[in-house]
Amino acid sequence: MRHIFEPALYYNAFGPYEPVLRVASGDTIVTKTLDARGYDQQEQKVAERGNPLTGPFFVEGAEPGDTLQVTIDKAYPNREFGWTRTVIAAHVVDPPYVPEIQSDVELARWRLDLQGGTATLIEPETRLTGTTMPIEPMLGCLGVAPSRHQAISSATSGPHGGNMDYRGLRAGVSVYFPVFEPGALLFVGDGHALQGDGEITGTGIEISFDVELTVRLHKGKEIGWPRGENADSIFTMGNARPLDQGVQHATTEMLRWLRAEYGLDVMGASILLGQCVAYDVGNVFDPAYTMVCKVPKRWLPRK
Amino acid sequence: MRHIFEPALYYNAFGPYEPVLRVASGDTIVTKTLDARGYDQQEQKVAERGNPLTGPFFVEGAEPGDTLQVTIDKAYPNREFGWTRTVIAAHVVDPPYVPEIQSDVELARWRLDLQGGTATLIEPETRLTGTTMPIEPMLGCLGVAPSRHQAISSATSGPHGGNMDYRGLRAGVSVYFPVFEPGALLFVGDGHALQGDGEITGTGIEISFDVELTVRLHKGKEIGWPRGENADSIFTMGNARPLDQGVQHATTEMLRWLRAEYGLDVMGASILLGQCVAYDVGNVFDPAYTMVCKVPKRWLPRK
Amino acid sequence: MRHIFEPALYYNAFGPYEPVLRVASGDTIVTKTLDARGYDQQEQKVAERGNPLTGPFFVEGAEPGDTLQVTIDKAYPNREFGWTRTVIAAHVVDPPYVPEIQSDVELARWRLDLQGGTATLIEPETRLTGTTMPIEPMLGCLGVAPSRHQAISSATSGPHGGNMDYRGLRAGVSVYFPVFEPGALLFVGDGHALQGDGEITGTGIEISFDVELTVRLHKGKEIGWPRGENADSIFTMGNARPLDQGVQHATTEMLRWLRAEYGLDVMGASILLGQCVAYDVGNVFDPAYTMVCKVPKRWLPRK
Amino acid sequence: MRHIFEPALYYNAFGPYEPVLRVASGDTIVTKTLDARGYDQQEQKVAERGNPLTGPFFVEGAEPGDTLQVTIDKAYPNREFGWTRTVIAAHVVDPPYVPEIQSDVELARWRLDLQGGTATLIEPETRLTGTTMPIEPMLGCLGVAPSRHQAISSATSGPHGGNMDYRGLRAGVSVYFPVFEPGALLFVGDGHALQGDGEITGTGIEISFDVELTVRLHKGKEIGWPRGENADSIFTMGNARPLDQGVQHATTEMLRWLRAEYGLDVMGASILLGQCVAYDVGNVFDPAYTMVCKVPKRWLPRK
Repeated sequence: MRHIFEPALYYNAFGPYEPVLRVASGDTIVTKTLDARGYDQQEQKVAERGNPLTGPFFVEGAEPGDTLQVTIDKAYPNREFGWTRTVIAAHVVDPPYVPEIQSDVELARWRLDLQGGTATLIEPETRLTGTTMPIEPMLGCLGVAPSRHQAISSATSGPHGGNMDYRGLRAGVSVYFPVFEPGALLFVGDGHALQGDGEITGTGIEISFDVELTVRLHKGKEIGWPRGENADSIFTMGNARPLDQGVQHATTEMLRWLRAEYGLDVMGASILLGQCVAYDVGNVFDPAYTMVCKVPKRWLPRK
Repeated sequence: MRHIFEPALYYNAFGPYEPVLRVASGDTIVTKTLDARGYDQQEQKVAERGNPLTGPFFVEGAEPGDTLQVTIDKAYPNREFGWTRTVIAAHVVDPPYVPEIQSDVELARWRLDLQGGTATLIEPETRLTGTTMPIEPMLGCLGVAPSRHQAISSATSGPHGGNMDYRGLRAGVSVYFPVFEPGALLFVGDGHALQGDGEITGTGIEISFDVELTVRLHKGKEIGWPRGENADSIFTMGNARPLDQGVQHATTEMLRWLRAEYGLDVMGASILLGQCVAYDVGNVFDPAYTMVCKVPKRWLPRK
Repeated sequence: MRHIFEPALYYNAFGPYEPVLRVASGDTIVTKTLDARGYDQQEQKVAERGNPLTGPFFVEGAEPGDTLQVTIDKAYPNREFGWTRTVIAAHVVDPPYVPEIQSDVELARWRLDLQGGTATLIEPETRLTGTTMPIEPMLGCLGVAPSRHQAISSATSGPHGGNMDYRGLRAGVSVYFPVFEPGALLFVGDGHALQGDGEITGTGIEISFDVELTVRLHKGKEIGWPRGENADSIFTMGNARPLDQGVQHATTEMLRWLRAEYGLDVMGASILLGQCVAYDVGNVFDPAYTMVCKVPKRWLPRK
Repeated sequence: MRHIFEPALYYNAFGPYEPVLRVASGDTIVTKTLDARGYDQQEQKVAERGNPLTGPFFVEGAEPGDTLQVTIDKAYPNREFGWTRTVIAAHVVDPPYVPEIQSDVELARWRLDLQGGTATLIEPETRLTGTTMPIEPMLGCLGVAPSRHQAISSATSGPHGGNMDYRGLRAGVSVYFPVFEPGALLFVGDGHALQGDGEITGTGIEISFDVELTVRLHKGKEIGWPRGENADSIFTMGNARPLDQGVQHATTEMLRWLRAEYGLDVMGASILLGQCVAYDVGNVFDPAYTMVCKVPKRWLPRK
């Protein structure tokens, strides 16, 4: 079933809130997201800044201990104006260099050509101004209600997903989340038309999005961290600081996956990762960072 | 000039040792490297284990404050037998998971087809055994003598380079090192036929290599961390633990580069990185980890 | 005013929940806390495990941007049986050492002499069994509702306080918290009869407590992290991982304090800290660690 | 035997250098150290800045795999002028706060009363100027030649000791180092008349020292990290970044010690540490940080 959902209420945390819509496994949700400061498709401010989220969506039958698969069918900007911050975050440069990266201009403005799929830097005036780049739309926030009935800010991440800002969360990708609350309680937001690894200025090109998500429930399947899959690879996501701990979470989750579903023992899984693993860097701006552990499907043994 | 150099002596540290050869800027060094345990092309043990290095090569005229460019003209295995470790390092998984990744078998063996450019896993017996993968030869160790007359183990890295285990250090790439000692004192070693990101089992496919390096001296050009360049990108390398600090070092070095040589101010450089940067993970096995900050040449302003 | 409050409901998170009691600035709350597994003074399980909290207490007039002072008038065990875990947490030892610290026995039992103020190890059988130690009762959990309407597990910490497990939070000490929600919403729990620095086994001697807290509201006084004060010292608390970031938070908060209230400029505050600061380690078991930055009152300039 | 040694040559690294003196186990070395910028007792510059070291001292019979005990019989300033830096290091505060801790004045000056045991701040002018504090003289640098024939800068630390800046390394304390080179090759330097935890401004009160050290060789006793002992406690030292890793190294070394020499099994050692351990913070200024794990002798089982 296909639900057209027009959001009216937005949360700034992933938490056990009253669902805005109930859907069944297999259903598709067609909806919209605001930009990170709460502005909608018409550039009207309709919610508080700080990654306001669309949702939560209650998936019938989902219980703690299950896994929720979310396939991103569509994630694309729906207006022509986007913005970014103008300086790299202080904690991403060497501490003594911080005084050199101050700026009075807070925001840069970009004009999008939605049909052509490009973004052009309009202001401020720098040597880059006027540059046009192909967009690569992605979802900064995707996740479910956390464990222990917590409500976790949409400015950070955890085992429940959250603000992971991974460039790989784009149309065509499926992401798997552990279910901690009845109904899973799915949230989405913080679309970026284009973003470098790490979201090191604290933003991608922030803009409102049209989003379509299809949910599928995997009863009794338990995972520890978000997992995902695209045409070429499977991947796992570890959210923590320092990044070293993200590496540990993501690598352990991948080992569990390879051992449980691909018939590999510890040595087989280790040798495979040792020669084929790739790590992608998600968010390094938030309190929790995101590290992605990726394995090409080409080298996976048949299930 | 082209020097054919047959090594006879190997160091297990990057340090201010007596040069084995003196070369001029523009010269090419044709030489060989041992595998990480000190075995040569004939599988004879000729040096101590722990990344024995070929060198140091003294570059005439190099002084502290200069930059040494090293172009990797060739880096390719020269024998048919390679080996890897069989389990992921304890510090790369979640601490409570460590007891699950123990193994009695220390080494896996691979047979290489040097003409075809592939490696086949021979033993131990796992579901992967018999798998044949294309090789991607790279240099695990490349660098110069460190600052303050230190001698730093070839099992770690720093501003001088060292054991960075970055898959990007392969034929066709140029790497730039700060010069700390007269003559720069270039070392090379630890060739890997194939390695995943991070060298998370503590090895790639370890094997002896044929290596050709061309050196060029940039007098009076001062850099803080290793930099590099391939056909598509420029990159910087930060070596430290935790990875977060590697991110800081590499990002700061890239900002310095973009500001000094590409005419970008802080906002321009930040906006460019914010939308276009990619981070690659080098070694996460050693005491110091390696993070690479990469920018596509396509988006760089003309110098 | 002195409120005798008998708790009946316990939360496992610091969050914007319905207050259980409303008090005024200057009031004292006399209440009880459960042990970390939800057992009360009569050793009956009355709440879910994982640091169930007594509260929240609504302080009349408290608004975001204020500071809540909480003086610990009493914090003392109220039963004779306490327990600890028996092995150090995996993440507190070197990763390769983890397989050596496994144990089949989960809990150790201690008998307390409440009048004499001692605890004796009863079981399991080790060379320490029978040892009697003086207790040093302290509160593992103390804090207020977090920012952004979050609900944060009582198994971790943040700017709102939380599960900081600092030995210094004992009778006679005042702690200051930033107010994020109307009424501040104060919580308390997780009493330890005795605990080493870091809570490295994941427990102190866990036991139910009698607690008395006096609250005082400081209108319009804004702080960034918990602060505190005992007879000899003032201190600040930074909660984050890695500990290095805890050092940053706590030191920055101390610099702000010294500059704003003790008339010190940056050099004066730096020189004072450079020669006199002490760092104490709070929790190193939870997702967020706690570092305490402490300055002897003896060396503070008069306000 | 008691050796009076007047140094003439100073190294800025711990490394396998030619010994300046050969001593036997049980001998005492009476010598002097320069201040961190290379100035001697007469305030003459006689060595390069950056913790120039007195030594190395060759201990007859010491071989890799042994342990060298160094008892600090005396460590006391021998001139009246000392200096400190004036601002806290950028990496010790929150990154966005860095621009607020800039200063044009690099150094503060202190006058010492060597008989009275005090230091008085002379300049620059701040609210602290004129304050007189009791000194607590300690050794910033103490250690031996590192493993693998490395030469490691005296501005950092490792398993060999080095620049640990731990306030606990003062007269009356014994420190134990693993031996990596024949003769152990002991170095000493960087005396501080007074220093807060962490050496967060990058200095204590830097000054030249009179030093007396007694060495004792423990043949065949192998340790992994520096250990120590004072009147009340035994302690271990872990040197790494982040501090979390220092906690791991120091705690693991303490567990090894308790198990090997105090007859405790894993549970006994864990329960002891869980209730009694204290962590002290050494240097948090250098590339490697220092964390100290301390246990009161009072609670140790008889050997």
